Amino acid sequence: MTYRILVKDPESQARRGQLTLAHGVVNTPQFMPVGTVATVKGLEPHELESIGAEIILGNTYHLWLRPGEDLVAEAGGLHKFQNWRRPILTDSGGFQVFSLAQMRKISEAGVHFRSHLDGRPLFLSPEESMRIQEALASDIAMQLDECAPYPAERRYIQESMQLSLDWYARCRKVHKREDQLLFPIVQGGMEADLRRQSAASLADFDPPGYGIGGLSVGEPAELMYEMIEQVIPELPEDRPRYLMGVGAPEQLVEGVARGIDMFDCVLPTRLGRHGQVYTSEGRLTIRNQAFARDFSPPDPDCHCHVCQNYSRAYLRHLIKCNEILGLKLCSYHNVAFLLRLMQDIREAIECGEFTAFRRAFHSRYRRY
Amino acid sequence: MTYRILVKDPESQARRGQLTLAHGVVNTPQFMPVGTVATVKGLEPHELESIGAEIILGNTYHLWLRPGEDLVAEAGGLHKFQNWRRPILTDSGGFQVFSLAQMRKISEAGVHFRSHLDGRPLFLSPEESMRIQEALASDIAMQLDECAPYPAERRYIQESMQLSLDWYARCRKVHKREDQLLFPIVQGGMEADLRRQSAASLADFDPPGYGIGGLSVGEPAELMYEMIEQVIPELPEDRPRYLMGVGAPEQLVEGVARGIDMFDCVLPTRLGRHGQVYTSEGRLTIRNQAFARDFSPPDPDCHCHVCQNYSRAYLRHLIKCNEILGLKLCSYHNVAFLLRLMQDIREAIECGEFTAFRRAFHSRYRRY
Repeated sequence: MTYRILVKDPESQARRGQLTLAHGVVNTPQFMPVGTVATVKGLEPHELESIGAEIILGNTYHLWLRPGEDLVAEAGGLHKFQNWRRPILTDSGGFQVFSLAQMRKISEAGVHFRSHLDGRPLFLSPEESMRIQEALASDIAMQLDECAPYPAERRYIQESMQLSLDWYARCRKVHKREDQLLFPIVQGGMEADLRRQSAASLADFDPPGYGIGGLSVGEPAELMYEMIEQVIPELPEDRPRYLMGVGAPEQLVEGVARGIDMFDCVLPTRLGRHGQVYTSEGRLTIRNQAFARDFSPPDPDCHCHVCQNYSRAYLRHLIKCNEILGLKLCSYHNVAFLLRLMQDIREAIECGEFTAFRRAFHSRYRRY
Repeated sequence: MTYRILVKDPESQARRGQLTLAHGVVNTPQFMPVGTVATVKGLEPHELESIGAEIILGNTYHLWLRPGEDLVAEAGGLHKFQNWRRPILTDSGGFQVFSLAQMRKISEAGVHFRSHLDGRPLFLSPEESMRIQEALASDIAMQLDECAPYPAERRYIQESMQLSLDWYARCRKVHKREDQLLFPIVQGGMEADLRRQSAASLADFDPPGYGIGGLSVGEPAELMYEMIEQVIPELPEDRPRYLMGVGAPEQLVEGVARGIDMFDCVLPTRLGRHGQVYTSEGRLTIRNQAFARDFSPPDPDCHCHVCQNYSRAYLRHLIKCNEILGLKLCSYHNVAFLLRLMQDIREAIECGEFTAFRRAFHSRYRRY
């Protein structure tokens, strides 16, 4: 398992690389569709492959609760259980514990909380997160961390960052799988010096890659970009950097420009289920009346299967009728759109034209 | 547009035929998946084609309400709107008016009722049903009929049957599309003589095919089979017979044995959405705990895409989590199962082995 940088953009921090994992090669910069409970909502593995997905994400918290990591292990691991042959990254479960679970009590040891499904008491620790992720048999495991909310007091952020550092050391200690990489997570809220300190401390361990967590939690995009800029110089160049939970198309472009290699986000499928589709000119609320008789493709610039076969009017009709197929087709297009965007970004870096690409993208794409 | 019988089974009423329609050839006996609002729930047209669907059904009532027949016409017809190239049969809208709509008032002229979606008053007549179905541009249109409930008084059934006959005459009068066949519908409840009378009266018009309606409305299966046996001798041999709203796998086999050529039913997709799958040994409630760690295919005898790629345990997990993909995969398998059953039936008739096939099917398939 190696990371190789193929091309560096001379005018930005953007890099074109290749991460070799147990289940295959991931070309970076790359976007990872989120497969919460062993399914990228609405899409089959062969559909994801056909639109170029090289790695997907699984949520440890959700899989731990349902169907349970022991059942997944019995099936032969997460890949076999869901019939996905390419790499999988699992998160630590921490983020969902902090955002979904009830009656959380954090201590040095770990987190006591109650399941959001049936209220049963559970305990997640660095050791338990490693045990679960090793049972799931993902290609990349993430350390258990605590993600400070935004806004938060500096003192809280500092303690939280220190806790995450300690937890990473404990994760390393128990992590055994040699076919699974373990990434630590840079924290530090919106405090530039804490971000730098977190990154530098983690770099001392020389891990095979880095997560950057605790961003895209409600802060302005400019502040997120600033934090990335603080962190990147502290990280070794020859390791992949994964910006967690991001993002929107313009944030992918800007993240790459600042040296990010991997992204994940639930937005393409979540927006799809709410009848919103990406286009090269911005997001479109396809359920609006305006599209009732619009027989053009969702995105006239897109070559995906959905845009080649269905009209805006048809998608709107399906969404209005709450038809499963509407949710699927909008999700499919949105994931295809982001994967295509990443491919265009990779090609632009390869050709030394990333700056021009970035400028052209922003001149067309309208933010929301 | 022609109907050709290729092989007749010497030991039953089963026939192997070919119905040529504006959008292609339909091999009979055939099952038509139901695409209520311009989508067979959860399945894409290319998926339906790949599992051998040759004709699908559209519901006039639903399409009239949403998106509206004028919008469908503007899209270039129902085929183009939903990107389905093969034949489509539309029902008359009558059945849904009688089963879904509120405040129905039936008269000689037609039916006044209120939409089940927004309560707005609507009027459906034989002429209006023809106008809508011609706008939808289906390959086969069905006459507007009244479907007597079960059980019902003989007097009611008789009047209802007569009304349906009169309405067929009116449908014929206004029906214009030359690329669309118009099928009348045999009614007569569970009254053998009224069934025969209805069939014989319709046959006088020499229509290109016949619907048999008002069955599978709650009566015992044996009574349904008896009614089919009463009707078939009254119908000319060289016209296709369509048993409406049927059905279950064993009813398809028994219908064919009695001379039925076409079927439709919402069961495969509806059962699929409720986590039930067909197997060659009967129906399986895959959401049951018993299948939590069953890593075998949904139906070990099935060669469909779902059975080749996913386990019972995985489908159960998806259904338990209310994942869209679970609904889709169970629906896909069930439709594939019925289409494959019809293909096996056609091959058995061709080889003169339908009786053996029928016996073997029943010896394995457990009814519910």
